[in-house]
Amino acid sequence: MTRSRDLGIPFEGQPGPYNAITDVSGVEVGHATVISGDGPLKPGGGPVRTGVTVVLPRGKQYSPVFAAWYSLNGCGELTGTAWLEESGFLESAIALTNTVSIGTVHDALITWASQHIPIDFNQIRDVFWYLPVVGETNDMLLNDISGFHVRPEHVFAALESASGGPVQEGNVGGGTGMVTHEFKGGIGTSSRLVEIDGNLYSLGILVQANHGVRSHLTIAGVQVGKEIPELMPEVRGYRPEPGSGSILVVLATDAPLLPHQLKRLTKRIPMGLGRTGGVGANPSGDLFIAFSTANSSPASRSGLLQADYLPNAWNTPLFEATIQATEEAVVNALVAAETMTGINGNTVYALPHDRLVSILRKYNRLAA
Amino acid sequence: MTRSRDLGIPFEGQPGPYNAITDVSGVEVGHATVISGDGPLKPGGGPVRTGVTVVLPRGKQYSPVFAAWYSLNGCGELTGTAWLEESGFLESAIALTNTVSIGTVHDALITWASQHIPIDFNQIRDVFWYLPVVGETNDMLLNDISGFHVRPEHVFAALESASGGPVQEGNVGGGTGMVTHEFKGGIGTSSRLVEIDGNLYSLGILVQANHGVRSHLTIAGVQVGKEIPELMPEVRGYRPEPGSGSILVVLATDAPLLPHQLKRLTKRIPMGLGRTGGVGANPSGDLFIAFSTANSSPASRSGLLQADYLPNAWNTPLFEATIQATEEAVVNALVAAETMTGINGNTVYALPHDRLVSILRKYNRLAA
Amino acid sequence: MTRSRDLGIPFEGQPGPYNAITDVSGVEVGHATVISGDGPLKPGGGPVRTGVTVVLPRGKQYSPVFAAWYSLNGCGELTGTAWLEESGFLESAIALTNTVSIGTVHDALITWASQHIPIDFNQIRDVFWYLPVVGETNDMLLNDISGFHVRPEHVFAALESASGGPVQEGNVGGGTGMVTHEFKGGIGTSSRLVEIDGNLYSLGILVQANHGVRSHLTIAGVQVGKEIPELMPEVRGYRPEPGSGSILVVLATDAPLLPHQLKRLTKRIPMGLGRTGGVGANPSGDLFIAFSTANSSPASRSGLLQADYLPNAWNTPLFEATIQATEEAVVNALVAAETMTGINGNTVYALPHDRLVSILRKYNRLAA
Amino acid sequence: MTRSRDLGIPFEGQPGPYNAITDVSGVEVGHATVISGDGPLKPGGGPVRTGVTVVLPRGKQYSPVFAAWYSLNGCGELTGTAWLEESGFLESAIALTNTVSIGTVHDALITWASQHIPIDFNQIRDVFWYLPVVGETNDMLLNDISGFHVRPEHVFAALESASGGPVQEGNVGGGTGMVTHEFKGGIGTSSRLVEIDGNLYSLGILVQANHGVRSHLTIAGVQVGKEIPELMPEVRGYRPEPGSGSILVVLATDAPLLPHQLKRLTKRIPMGLGRTGGVGANPSGDLFIAFSTANSSPASRSGLLQADYLPNAWNTPLFEATIQATEEAVVNALVAAETMTGINGNTVYALPHDRLVSILRKYNRLAA
Repeated sequence: MTRSRDLGIPFEGQPGPYNAITDVSGVEVGHATVISGDGPLKPGGGPVRTGVTVVLPRGKQYSPVFAAWYSLNGCGELTGTAWLEESGFLESAIALTNTVSIGTVHDALITWASQHIPIDFNQIRDVFWYLPVVGETNDMLLNDISGFHVRPEHVFAALESASGGPVQEGNVGGGTGMVTHEFKGGIGTSSRLVEIDGNLYSLGILVQANHGVRSHLTIAGVQVGKEIPELMPEVRGYRPEPGSGSILVVLATDAPLLPHQLKRLTKRIPMGLGRTGGVGANPSGDLFIAFSTANSSPASRSGLLQADYLPNAWNTPLFEATIQATEEAVVNALVAAETMTGINGNTVYALPHDRLVSILRKYNRLAA
Repeated sequence: MTRSRDLGIPFEGQPGPYNAITDVSGVEVGHATVISGDGPLKPGGGPVRTGVTVVLPRGKQYSPVFAAWYSLNGCGELTGTAWLEESGFLESAIALTNTVSIGTVHDALITWASQHIPIDFNQIRDVFWYLPVVGETNDMLLNDISGFHVRPEHVFAALESASGGPVQEGNVGGGTGMVTHEFKGGIGTSSRLVEIDGNLYSLGILVQANHGVRSHLTIAGVQVGKEIPELMPEVRGYRPEPGSGSILVVLATDAPLLPHQLKRLTKRIPMGLGRTGGVGANPSGDLFIAFSTANSSPASRSGLLQADYLPNAWNTPLFEATIQATEEAVVNALVAAETMTGINGNTVYALPHDRLVSILRKYNRLAA
Repeated sequence: MTRSRDLGIPFEGQPGPYNAITDVSGVEVGHATVISGDGPLKPGGGPVRTGVTVVLPRGKQYSPVFAAWYSLNGCGELTGTAWLEESGFLESAIALTNTVSIGTVHDALITWASQHIPIDFNQIRDVFWYLPVVGETNDMLLNDISGFHVRPEHVFAALESASGGPVQEGNVGGGTGMVTHEFKGGIGTSSRLVEIDGNLYSLGILVQANHGVRSHLTIAGVQVGKEIPELMPEVRGYRPEPGSGSILVVLATDAPLLPHQLKRLTKRIPMGLGRTGGVGANPSGDLFIAFSTANSSPASRSGLLQADYLPNAWNTPLFEATIQATEEAVVNALVAAETMTGINGNTVYALPHDRLVSILRKYNRLAA
Repeated sequence: MTRSRDLGIPFEGQPGPYNAITDVSGVEVGHATVISGDGPLKPGGGPVRTGVTVVLPRGKQYSPVFAAWYSLNGCGELTGTAWLEESGFLESAIALTNTVSIGTVHDALITWASQHIPIDFNQIRDVFWYLPVVGETNDMLLNDISGFHVRPEHVFAALESASGGPVQEGNVGGGTGMVTHEFKGGIGTSSRLVEIDGNLYSLGILVQANHGVRSHLTIAGVQVGKEIPELMPEVRGYRPEPGSGSILVVLATDAPLLPHQLKRLTKRIPMGLGRTGGVGANPSGDLFIAFSTANSSPASRSGLLQADYLPNAWNTPLFEATIQATEEAVVNALVAAETMTGINGNTVYALPHDRLVSILRKYNRLAA
């Protein structure tokens, strides 16, 4: 898997060791990739190019974290947000999948937690995993989406395989069939280390990128998309409006922030997307969620609670890190994804690395 | 089925002919009630006391309406709200069910629409029924909720049986196993007619009421709950915190209102709940949605659009109607519901009509 | 000054020693009442029936408190809310005045703080008092409002006279010329004591009530307004739509709550207003602000911070207290206010105590 | 006055004839610039480098327009937003000034309108100009801000001189003493023409830019700020945190949009700011307002109203125009502003045009 920095693309800020959301200690990511069949679309019968990606804030347990969310453009689904907004907590895993699999994945998260996570209801729950967070983007260009091919067992597999460390990017998990700026896209991640008052904090981003038109694509300030007008998706049959997909963004940090401070971070994500050419198009579900792992037990029911948090005045470096890591995660999704052929032989091409490098060089954005 | 007015309970304002949400022309309501088994809870095996209720803004078609939503207290799920807020449109039916059936019902709505509603994707859709609105309250006191007993065929049945005219209340549809102020509750509805500038508009409310503690219950300004301390729910085994349920409220009107004006109506719903003793308790999902059927094709894609709307100055009578109809719908749910025994022999008692009448008389709130 | 409980009006919950917002330790209230002249309106020359009321969360110092706000109906001004929402802090006094005095009072707060509060800008400020919170309701029925009769010295006087202890109600301060449900109204206050996990917390409400129509007025569940159709305001010349005034509500508590939890409290204020007959009419500025004095220095800039807060599950009793104290504060404003004659001999009558008592007795809501 | 395009800086999209907010027909802009004195700061006695800028949506009359607003970061004041959000209308002029002049300008707008705009209160008003929109940024680096040097007569002058046509940029009006990315900044404007379904719409942006740190400044995708580390502001005495200023953005369009659609535009403004290096820093008041002049009388009180609006699906080109025009307006503010010396001899340097041109050429972003 190639990453943006392997190509020498310049970014601002200091990434963590994995340059991934998993640089935030305790965060686990798992993918289930579902690929089968070729040829013409047989609704319900494939071909299948889809999957599900899960992000577990503190691994495989019930351990709420402070959280917030924001909708840049709401043409999408992100379940669980009413409680997240009300309570200030994320209490379940986050799952990212395709548009019509919201129901299946929602049920599967509840089922899995009921079976795998011991809980004493009289002690600690608020809502446990019963109002889980599930988001979607639409992979109908490559996938037999109406076939409901994401099954509960895929969700269970994603959860069980979730781990820290390096994160697969591109055509994996929920990102399997996704398209970014009319190149093949999917899952991307990045992180930043931020020093505040002598403490080093990590902030990580994971995107499921399925948005954008070609002509807007901007990398390292260069309008790369305008320079590569060819290699456009080859689509037979109905094609939704270009750029009509969506981008889901998950932000994790170990910086201690209260829910209203995490909300501030989510509102900077559009500034990172703006740098890569995002516009939040009308049919795009641009939904963002942020959580902090800093307070170990913020939703305890026993007695008066205490939360650590940073002064507002020290939030600005985290705003910058959010913008930087969002920008890089989108580019990482593009760089990692490989050309894919799906239903009806529809083909979405990978961003050609050699072309990217030569364009950046033309604009004096590469070292040599 | 007994209704509040049959008992002489006084309310303000003028109801429509059915005193139901269906007084708004075109609105259809359908219920599927799922009841089976008795005795001890066999998880996955019953007893079953649940169901699903659907509200179709303009019958069985794809015909978006202007809409808005509001969360008084977000301890619940209402899918589809990100797009509803963004677009100003409700594009699907609204379905109300139990907490763990969100996924099944969500999928079933998409499936049913795909099969039953003809649509030319190139002409008119925004998101069609693909981001449907599904809400939930928790019937675990009476129902084997973890058994996923609401099946797609129940959703289809509710949709296909939906109609205008009188609406069943109490232990039906999504309200089957619900509890209101520690009496048996469930579905309730009411309506008001409002004359504005010589035009008569209808405004209807439908609630799935599963909220409230006994001591707060207030009817016609009288603290009825404090006067009936007995007939409390008989519950064996785990019992969630009293009053921890939720109330979902659907508001329909044929008054021409823009999305931001409909939002104003939803924010008055708590004022009606306040009159019956609601407090929006922490573990309650008090989620409200409002739509207007006045503009026949507000989401058309063809050309410049025109919308009718009322001056803001004429919204106040609709605020009053909202408060009045909300109050009456909650009381109607209580008056219609009958005593029910569910899992483990758990029993939730109906509000005794004779006691209610004598208490209201004691406080000089009944005619004779 | 007569208070509601002096008349035997029943309320729920346990008030604090002053039954006032000042039951929250440290909170100070100050009024400047500006009354002069009689007879016909001479624009700019009186008669004058106006003033300003200030609420100081922690007395006369710079000491930010966690805070939140909510707009039930935004036909009014409440400055400073953008920063309050962003930061989670209230950093200035709150001032309540008449509609056209927003500017004068805003400037005066900044001026007074600059002169009276020592501050080391390099240590602790976020925005100091530079984005102060000033709210307004419209006293044009009784006051020469366009005369800008609230002067900086009135603001200074209100600040300097502010104290804990009993709070004057009715025709004082910002409430001087205000009208409530078409009776004379103005400033009202109330408090509740709430025991949570063995700790006793105070929650206080102060209202500047200038809203409502007569027929909606409800006290102790009884529709008192409908029973007193006479004693309506006598108004010569232009009269704004009845009920077009506004209600400002300030909530203080010493319960430790984070900003997003304080927001929850503000959203219950409409439920208390609903019980007294409020509807949030179109031309009403129904703007609410809540703060917690529990954390002594939540906006410090030095190092990592810690905040105490209550589990969400323990917020419900505070929701109830909010509703109860809001209801009582409105009734207290009505009971304390005395008949007033202002511009053009316009007269607004006090709620007649004897009539109120006899009506409550008729509905069996008084002890004897 | 030099503008960005005079230097050959490339931008996307097609500007209108003035490349200014006044390309939206009917929109008028007026400035009052207040400059006097030199040398050491004498609080209350200068030196003065400040002013006020007004934007009149439909010239000098009372004529509400559909409007919406958004706060990227709320460390600032923008009065009038509660009613704007509630009603969907902007009913007054918008005024932009310095932080402590909010009160003076607020009062002056009310006074001017009362004296100059005939109005029949019984026919058409909602709130007239009584809840005016006034925003601020902080010019304390160059200006004796605590001297309250913006006087009512300056506001009157700005209103009376307001006109369509070319708009002065840089050190004028409210922008007089403002600093942008640590260069001299101030007022900037730009516009775009957008063809939708055969109709040509105009969208204009006006900014009062007082935000940003040098190292983030990005123009045409090139990190210009990093290449010009010198020419930093020379400041004696107290200096607020670099980048702690704010940016106010006014968006006007003649595209027919409903309030909730205008809100969507405001949420794209951060994407334009992101392209120039904005991060929405903690102490920044990044407050944005958008209005549409398309419907001529949307707030009429007489009878049922009709509004034109564009389908949501046609909003995307307006999102793009918003991002593009925001980016260019910020750069225009920088290019137009000239080096200024203010209090204590503090000096803020203009962005050197020759350096800018040579840097853009280095990155192959200029034609020759």
